[in-house]
Amino acid sequence: MKVGILGGGQLARMIALAGYPLGIRFIVLDPSVAACATTLGSHLHGDYNDETLLAELAKRSDVVTYEFENVPAKVADFLSAHTNVFPSPKALAVAQDRLIEKNFLNELEIPTAPYIEIDNFDSLQEAVLKIGYPAILKTRTQGYDGKGQSILKSPTDLKSSWQKLEGLAGILEGVVKFDREVSIIAVRSVSGEMVFYPLSENVHRGGILRVSESRKNDPMQAKAEDYVTRLMKALNYVGVLALELFEVKGQLIANEFAPRVHNSGHWTIEGAETSQFENHLRAILDLPLGSTAGVDYVTMVNFIGGKPENEEVLKIPNTHLHLYGKAPRKGRKIAHATIRAKTLEELEPLKKRLMALANEADDS
Amino acid sequence: MKVGILGGGQLARMIALAGYPLGIRFIVLDPSVAACATTLGSHLHGDYNDETLLAELAKRSDVVTYEFENVPAKVADFLSAHTNVFPSPKALAVAQDRLIEKNFLNELEIPTAPYIEIDNFDSLQEAVLKIGYPAILKTRTQGYDGKGQSILKSPTDLKSSWQKLEGLAGILEGVVKFDREVSIIAVRSVSGEMVFYPLSENVHRGGILRVSESRKNDPMQAKAEDYVTRLMKALNYVGVLALELFEVKGQLIANEFAPRVHNSGHWTIEGAETSQFENHLRAILDLPLGSTAGVDYVTMVNFIGGKPENEEVLKIPNTHLHLYGKAPRKGRKIAHATIRAKTLEELEPLKKRLMALANEADDS
Repeated sequence: MKVGILGGGQLARMIALAGYPLGIRFIVLDPSVAACATTLGSHLHGDYNDETLLAELAKRSDVVTYEFENVPAKVADFLSAHTNVFPSPKALAVAQDRLIEKNFLNELEIPTAPYIEIDNFDSLQEAVLKIGYPAILKTRTQGYDGKGQSILKSPTDLKSSWQKLEGLAGILEGVVKFDREVSIIAVRSVSGEMVFYPLSENVHRGGILRVSESRKNDPMQAKAEDYVTRLMKALNYVGVLALELFEVKGQLIANEFAPRVHNSGHWTIEGAETSQFENHLRAILDLPLGSTAGVDYVTMVNFIGGKPENEEVLKIPNTHLHLYGKAPRKGRKIAHATIRAKTLEELEPLKKRLMALANEADDS
Repeated sequence: MKVGILGGGQLARMIALAGYPLGIRFIVLDPSVAACATTLGSHLHGDYNDETLLAELAKRSDVVTYEFENVPAKVADFLSAHTNVFPSPKALAVAQDRLIEKNFLNELEIPTAPYIEIDNFDSLQEAVLKIGYPAILKTRTQGYDGKGQSILKSPTDLKSSWQKLEGLAGILEGVVKFDREVSIIAVRSVSGEMVFYPLSENVHRGGILRVSESRKNDPMQAKAEDYVTRLMKALNYVGVLALELFEVKGQLIANEFAPRVHNSGHWTIEGAETSQFENHLRAILDLPLGSTAGVDYVTMVNFIGGKPENEEVLKIPNTHLHLYGKAPRKGRKIAHATIRAKTLEELEPLKKRLMALANEADDS
């Protein structure tokens, strides 16, 4: 089987590493010659909008998938006309516009924070009166790792926030005073088989995911599975999907979903019977899905902008290093490490050592 | 870091897959354009004796290692003169000649079966009088998976066995009536750090490994570690080494050792905290070695000559498929699968299903 991937970053790289043992071959389309997944397969080098390249990708692939949700609709449609594309262009279209996404979630009775569409300064002024302070102004499209977002704490922030939007379509959202952030990584195959990983408990800082931990028997597991099931069924979804949620006083509020493998699921490589990367491939190739059962206790820590010396990381017992083969750059995710341990007591001191190393090297 | 590998088969492939997350890049030298590891790195295509290619491999690699022990001595020596080669040419020289190997083991007081050098028909006749029937005649060099071996059950087998040797130097060994076959996978780094995996219990059929299981708290663990420690120290060994042993009435008798990652250690990918492939790389790059602690219970089953449909294998819960990207051919190892389970009770029925599939597809 041959799988085409739009994007050749770390997600594509980890998909390909998971796919080799299944005998899958990869064709990666990415505009960068340095894209870190390209040495694991054939590299189609050029723009995502280049129809000649897209046609070649479709021709050479049994299935095409992607590692980022901002694939232009016309690209997804073009590919769909020529080969199987999973997840579907519909899932992309919903996920890449925060307004459409929130409307879609609410129609499925999956609660979200209050939100109002913003298309001019007047609508921002009106919206904030309804939502109240603090509120968060985001671009409807693009933006990841907190980019294109600003918090309004009082009326004095109105103008600067509006200016940060740079004329793009916006959405104002109420700030959720959450007790914790969680996400559920779910998988649905072409045949409609569904599996769910144990909840991830996540810590963000500066809009960037820092730490994810796998949770055993989390009290919110059933509710999260219910929400993500509604979402996947409504989208006739195929592949891995990550739904990010806030927990507030025992309730879950959806933040957003990603129609792809997700950073908060990287712990599944060591911490689950089958990784999210392998299950994404099994799903889109309509193979039986693998068990999502947890294996021991795990914590994943991101290295942002800079990373500790390899030796220092590998010295920490039970630590698994994942370098992405990317040059360090301020704010860039360049690697992660996962610690696995048989008990939480064993995990805790190792986690502290790893987080101290990550903080020291941090350049975000 | 760049690692050169002599040989581009499944062992090189699994080494490379383990090395990507550590940021290692690979250069593989193999005479076959279809060698299954070559898509994971640069491929130097040509003969192992080609000094121009060997010089290029040495120049481009921080360390050179190999996936088979029959590397000609002059090749290992040539590479050693130009770069770091681990394990050392000395380990190769001992491992690739059964007579030298057995002498070496006995000097270290590691017991072996009785053996006698055979260089003509008369010496075979004399030897079998001393060793008795049944005995096994092997070539001193070459030969793997039972190739080049014949069993002598009575004097009528003398002539045919001698003819099978085809004039090569031979060794006659007593047949060990073992209670079981085990192996220990051990690792020693450039700095001399040593770690040992839990014992593998192995089943061979027709001279080919069929099944390996990881053993927890095996009563023979300490003795096996003692023997392999003597061996690694005497060789000033660097990398993964596999020592194959027979258990006879509570004693261990060494059969042979392989100076490389080993089929009976493939279960470590899922069944140990750190795989033998990652630890081999850590050892030869002088990084801290990873924990060898067992993760749950595991059984590995080889697919020889033919393999079941992927769907059938992946349907078995907790089964991890490893295809080598090799065309099926009679007697050829083309894939393996590992089952991991939290208890032996859970493992047993899954193992039976997997072994039934493997037997059905077997072409050995």
